[in-house]
Amino acid sequence: MKKQVKLSIPQQSEQKRPLICTPLTGSDRNSLMTQLEVIVKKNPDMIEWRVDFFEKLDDLQAVKSVAEEIRNRSAHIPILFTRRSTREGGEEITISEKQVFNMYEAMMISKTVDLIDVELSADQADIDRVKRLAEDHHVQLLMSYHNFSETPSVEEIYNKLKETEDQGADIGKIAVMPQSIEDVLSLMQATTKASKHLSIPIVTMSMGRLGALSRMMGGACGSAMTFAVGSASSAPGQMPIEQLNAVLQVIEDVMGE
Amino acid sequence: MKKQVKLSIPQQSEQKRPLICTPLTGSDRNSLMTQLEVIVKKNPDMIEWRVDFFEKLDDLQAVKSVAEEIRNRSAHIPILFTRRSTREGGEEITISEKQVFNMYEAMMISKTVDLIDVELSADQADIDRVKRLAEDHHVQLLMSYHNFSETPSVEEIYNKLKETEDQGADIGKIAVMPQSIEDVLSLMQATTKASKHLSIPIVTMSMGRLGALSRMMGGACGSAMTFAVGSASSAPGQMPIEQLNAVLQVIEDVMGE
Repeated sequence: MKKQVKLSIPQQSEQKRPLICTPLTGSDRNSLMTQLEVIVKKNPDMIEWRVDFFEKLDDLQAVKSVAEEIRNRSAHIPILFTRRSTREGGEEITISEKQVFNMYEAMMISKTVDLIDVELSADQADIDRVKRLAEDHHVQLLMSYHNFSETPSVEEIYNKLKETEDQGADIGKIAVMPQSIEDVLSLMQATTKASKHLSIPIVTMSMGRLGALSRMMGGACGSAMTFAVGSASSAPGQMPIEQLNAVLQVIEDVMGE
Repeated sequence: MKKQVKLSIPQQSEQKRPLICTPLTGSDRNSLMTQLEVIVKKNPDMIEWRVDFFEKLDDLQAVKSVAEEIRNRSAHIPILFTRRSTREGGEEITISEKQVFNMYEAMMISKTVDLIDVELSADQADIDRVKRLAEDHHVQLLMSYHNFSETPSVEEIYNKLKETEDQGADIGKIAVMPQSIEDVLSLMQATTKASKHLSIPIVTMSMGRLGALSRMMGGACGSAMTFAVGSASSAPGQMPIEQLNAVLQVIEDVMGE
């Protein structure tokens, strides 16, 4: 009950098998519990609650109660708590930014989540507040950047990841949209560079149909985690966890020493 | 009997599933037939006879006889006939370059093979001779470049593939050795570029443990064919055809429309 799961995302070096995170996207308690039951059986390394899909977001007690129920039914799988903003591809919500960060605070204090996702584009004051609380409550801070329209240059992708490190994040994440295979290769190049030069684990993905390659091969380039569908997709290009596991096993077999 | 297999390697565009070619590396007739029996059951798209492994290379009648037997037992799978030179990673042989090209001529005339591999580094006179004969006998000319020590720059890889087109090859092939994941990504970048700008199908691979990624993902970058082990490996990093097929199926599922 409210027991905090100890989590360590290893910094990823070449050829390591990345962790798999599966999203929860239900709009109410029942659909979330149905998804959770399906997901837990598939044994992902992490579960992300995309709380921006939750329709009762304006009821903090409801959020806390569902968070506790997720915790109790997640078989000790670490929980990443994420409100994705509309400017970075998330759902429309009815609460203010201040309320979002109050909710984050409540989650950290109640120890029902292990990691919190905060976007690099958030206000610096909000970032600083979450950072202090995350340290106090031993919650890991994942800082993220999403671009649903294009893929920035290798240098820009690297710089965004560097920015998460500079901000004091425990993990840096970037998700970008490719227009071509060249864009997917750019994301993978930047991943390789960042995994060598940064001191924190990074999580990267190229989205959509073309980007699916990066969800399979990103681990070999140094991405510490990849997102897959356990019950429902939360971003374009996510593939079923079973298919992803099969490919990761082959990669491990042929690339392992 | 001596029926020529009609083969068309499609020019590869993004997301197409690449053909799979499996090598024959036996040193004598019996070991070749044992390998062939295993390979044919696995239904590759092409079979490469790496004739430099054959110990009776100095006996042209023996080569012709085995070639005919391979043809008759290969279940209409197209045959690529390859003598890999020692300078490009092949086996030591006892015959001269002139005898090698005489052997190529005999193979084309006897119509026991569908494609011939000629290295870009061969003498121009030999290349021209094979090219004429290949046209006359409707054999496809695959021109290749191998580097077992390093990965040239994206530009150099592209230029080697362009050179195969300029030489009049029907298919261009390049195999390079990576020292890092960056090198594997370079090969994939050059593949993407060449598949868009050249008029002939190209076949590319990064070798070794790291390069295995390119054997799985190269098709998505525009490589028309990938080599896999049916019975025995002919180059570092080749993986079993069963594993490769499983990964290619997933890629097709998630990247296909």
